[in-house]
Amino acid sequence: MRSVSERGATDLAEYLSAQRERLHRWLDQLVPSETTPPEVIHRAMRYSLFAGGKRLRPILAIATGEMFDVPESWLLPTACALEMIHTYSLIHDDLPALDNDDWRRGRPTCHKVFGEAIALLAGDALLTLAFRTLAEIPIPNSHRDRQARVIAEIARAAGTVEGMIGGQVLDLLTEGEPFDEPTLTAIHRMKTGALITASVRVGGIWGGAEPEQMHALTRYGECLGLAFQIIDDVLDVTGTPEEIGKTPGKDAAARKATYPSLYGLEASRQKAQALIGEALEALRPFPRSERLADLARLVLERRA
Amino acid sequence: MRSVSERGATDLAEYLSAQRERLHRWLDQLVPSETTPPEVIHRAMRYSLFAGGKRLRPILAIATGEMFDVPESWLLPTACALEMIHTYSLIHDDLPALDNDDWRRGRPTCHKVFGEAIALLAGDALLTLAFRTLAEIPIPNSHRDRQARVIAEIARAAGTVEGMIGGQVLDLLTEGEPFDEPTLTAIHRMKTGALITASVRVGGIWGGAEPEQMHALTRYGECLGLAFQIIDDVLDVTGTPEEIGKTPGKDAAARKATYPSLYGLEASRQKAQALIGEALEALRPFPRSERLADLARLVLERRA
Repeated sequence: MRSVSERGATDLAEYLSAQRERLHRWLDQLVPSETTPPEVIHRAMRYSLFAGGKRLRPILAIATGEMFDVPESWLLPTACALEMIHTYSLIHDDLPALDNDDWRRGRPTCHKVFGEAIALLAGDALLTLAFRTLAEIPIPNSHRDRQARVIAEIARAAGTVEGMIGGQVLDLLTEGEPFDEPTLTAIHRMKTGALITASVRVGGIWGGAEPEQMHALTRYGECLGLAFQIIDDVLDVTGTPEEIGKTPGKDAAARKATYPSLYGLEASRQKAQALIGEALEALRPFPRSERLADLARLVLERRA
Repeated sequence: MRSVSERGATDLAEYLSAQRERLHRWLDQLVPSETTPPEVIHRAMRYSLFAGGKRLRPILAIATGEMFDVPESWLLPTACALEMIHTYSLIHDDLPALDNDDWRRGRPTCHKVFGEAIALLAGDALLTLAFRTLAEIPIPNSHRDRQARVIAEIARAAGTVEGMIGGQVLDLLTEGEPFDEPTLTAIHRMKTGALITASVRVGGIWGGAEPEQMHALTRYGECLGLAFQIIDDVLDVTGTPEEIGKTPGKDAAARKATYPSLYGLEASRQKAQALIGEALEALRPFPRSERLADLARLVLERRA
């Protein structure tokens, strides 16, 4: 498998940086300013949104949407909504009632800065604003059905049955308990995989992708999502606080279900590599999938 | 002003009871069953949803929608989504980080039964499911623009700028602080009024109401919403735990901004009465508004 560094790493770095700036501009427009009353909630929302994350989910949505020539005015608000939902989930996960984390993305967590009450409400507010943003995308009536599909897709991916909240619940339930691979894969698929897969799929939905194309995008997203979470687990063991921007070793301390704890580091890395190979394979039907391929390879190389 | 009891109180009681049963059936279909994994989150969501609330918001949506002959398959999921959002807000408000309430609707609060982690996630899940429910309403493409308007309307009413979360933040900020009537009215308008007004307005949006009709519905909703919250404040002073299903006197103990603390009980009741008069006045353009009028009068008579 070619690595990103062998081909156009500079080009990819420039692409990522350009997309992050674009997302920043759109988010800045979509989220009420720090001087909009009540100020404190908007400051808390922005504190967590602009903490400098990787922006993987929105960039996946953009890269997929661009493959289908989706207009920017549909695609960027969708990408921003995905990042709002991801950020809300981080704020709530970090609360004392859940993971009780003091550091995130190299800064004190939202509740350490604004208190638990405001952090809780800032998470609620980002989730709510995500759906408002999606519903306010200006779409010609001829394409309104796609808007409803995009909203439903994201809500399902964030939900309890096969989505992010369900994965968080499973994660809580298995802490300190014995677990097997099916359980572990279910947790990862739901907790991280579902929203990553949805990020890819919404690009296809906006673009009017055919069912077999949606199927391929789904396979790409699922493999990428699982690989991403395995590498995340690996970094929790091997990373430094500076690299990963949060406290390492938390998974082991909380006796969480992770791949390294089941198979060790090397086999976990190999599993992630095989999944990325499968993700790249899924892209074969698409003539303009080089960006998505780069993003998949990047998951293996990330150090943070 | 005629009171409900002088005319067809039995008829109104039957109507309310029938609508509550209808809502119960639809909610039961829309929310994953208690045996759907991960079970505990669905049990928590259902525990709070089926705790026997008044169902004011969804019944307002139904009564308004029926005035415009909105089909049941659009109206009932919308009504259920409003109740999910209201219930999520109660679960989160009751958490120790916010109001720290042990009782709600006559039962232990969600976090007292399921723990803080699951209660937090159950609130998140109900908010997410509300938007999924709205996005999955089967609408002919010719009316899809109304669906987007309904989703945006509800998201704005639940949000930070003029909505529920913003009201909750203002409420937190003014606890124990001196306050004046404009502040108090702003808190009530945002914290309770916005979602009540949206409940009325979505009935009009689905029904294709004309701008002047929307204007009248908005006025009705705003007056009703403020009156409702004033009576709520009054009941927090005068009610027993059995009547109101939660701990009374919490507002005074927390030195919250309320009408009775500013004007006393009698002036507060008179203010509520005047507002209901204004709500009834707003209904004059509508020939089939008897249910909405009854609901407005009922707000003045409620004891719980």
